[in-house]
Amino acid sequence: MFEPPVQRLIDELSRLPGVGQKSAQRLAFHILNAEEADAVRLADAISEMRSSVRLCDRCFNVTAEQECTICADLRRDTSSICVVERAQDIPVIERTQLFKGRYHVLGGARTPNDGVGPDQLRMRELVARVDTEGVVEVIAATNPTVEGDTTAMYLAQLLKPLGVKVSKLASGLPVGGDLDYADEVTLGRALVGRQEL
Amino acid sequence: MFEPPVQRLIDELSRLPGVGQKSAQRLAFHILNAEEADAVRLADAISEMRSSVRLCDRCFNVTAEQECTICADLRRDTSSICVVERAQDIPVIERTQLFKGRYHVLGGARTPNDGVGPDQLRMRELVARVDTEGVVEVIAATNPTVEGDTTAMYLAQLLKPLGVKVSKLASGLPVGGDLDYADEVTLGRALVGRQEL
Repeated sequence: MFEPPVQRLIDELSRLPGVGQKSAQRLAFHILNAEEADAVRLADAISEMRSSVRLCDRCFNVTAEQECTICADLRRDTSSICVVERAQDIPVIERTQLFKGRYHVLGGARTPNDGVGPDQLRMRELVARVDTEGVVEVIAATNPTVEGDTTAMYLAQLLKPLGVKVSKLASGLPVGGDLDYADEVTLGRALVGRQEL
Repeated sequence: MFEPPVQRLIDELSRLPGVGQKSAQRLAFHILNAEEADAVRLADAISEMRSSVRLCDRCFNVTAEQECTICADLRRDTSSICVVERAQDIPVIERTQLFKGRYHVLGGARTPNDGVGPDQLRMRELVARVDTEGVVEVIAATNPTVEGDTTAMYLAQLLKPLGVKVSKLASGLPVGGDLDYADEVTLGRALVGRQEL
């Protein structure tokens, strides 16, 4: 219905997650009406990110170098590894400024019954790091979902025999949240994990 | 916080309308993890649309040619012009298959008190078309908002002296909607514009 070059961009945009036909149209017309330089910068940022970014040899974080900035940082504590499902989870944890170790990106989480083995999800690579990097603790920072919890449990089974401590993030009420609005599963977790004062 | 090429793309994406920091991150990581070819096609679609698209000489619709496909279509009725605020409104009206004339894109709408003159919003160009194209009716298909209605009223004042009929789209209940859910302004309009059976 739109002129071909416009329709082509709408089609490409609507392939992005969470972008429907309607918002793809809105975005395409925004880009059409924006400054030429803005449109060029957006197109360049896409191309450049794709051509310059790779995965860290050690932890599989995204990086422009062989090692990511965290692995390359000599001040980081090498005795603890925080395991995350996806690279985008790392900056979220970094923002807390409470973890000083290194990361390991699994590349996903597995559903309870599909038999997660060390070959999936870069677990073999994690085991190798635990073996060689003098790791004392592995923190499973997987998502608080059935898949994430299953993955965390599996990590514990896999790594405890190697003599490392395996922990996972606490579940409970979000800080600043309202008890009224907590779902019963979260509230249940908060109750089971209650802390003595 | 992210690696520079990733952060750069997040920054560019978050400049788009309706894309917050969080969805920009999600989109950037989607593009990062997508097939190389998909990312290239998206970047190319942006660049290509910007370089190949211009405004129709006659109606200011977007086009890859000098005239848009509608103005260039000899089967269109040249005696009626449907005036829209933005080019993206045209395919919406086309989809009804009920309008066979040509369009005119104003490029926006004006607020009641800022003195809309023929110099703004390509009204001078519209007047020139009414003068020279044998136009009999102008339909104001502006948005059903205060700004759109003000613009429609202004069009009527401007064009009626030239001897053309000026109409605007009917306001009322959306077809398939539920009376319970209609806001009072829409319901008021439906009442005032009630049609005898």
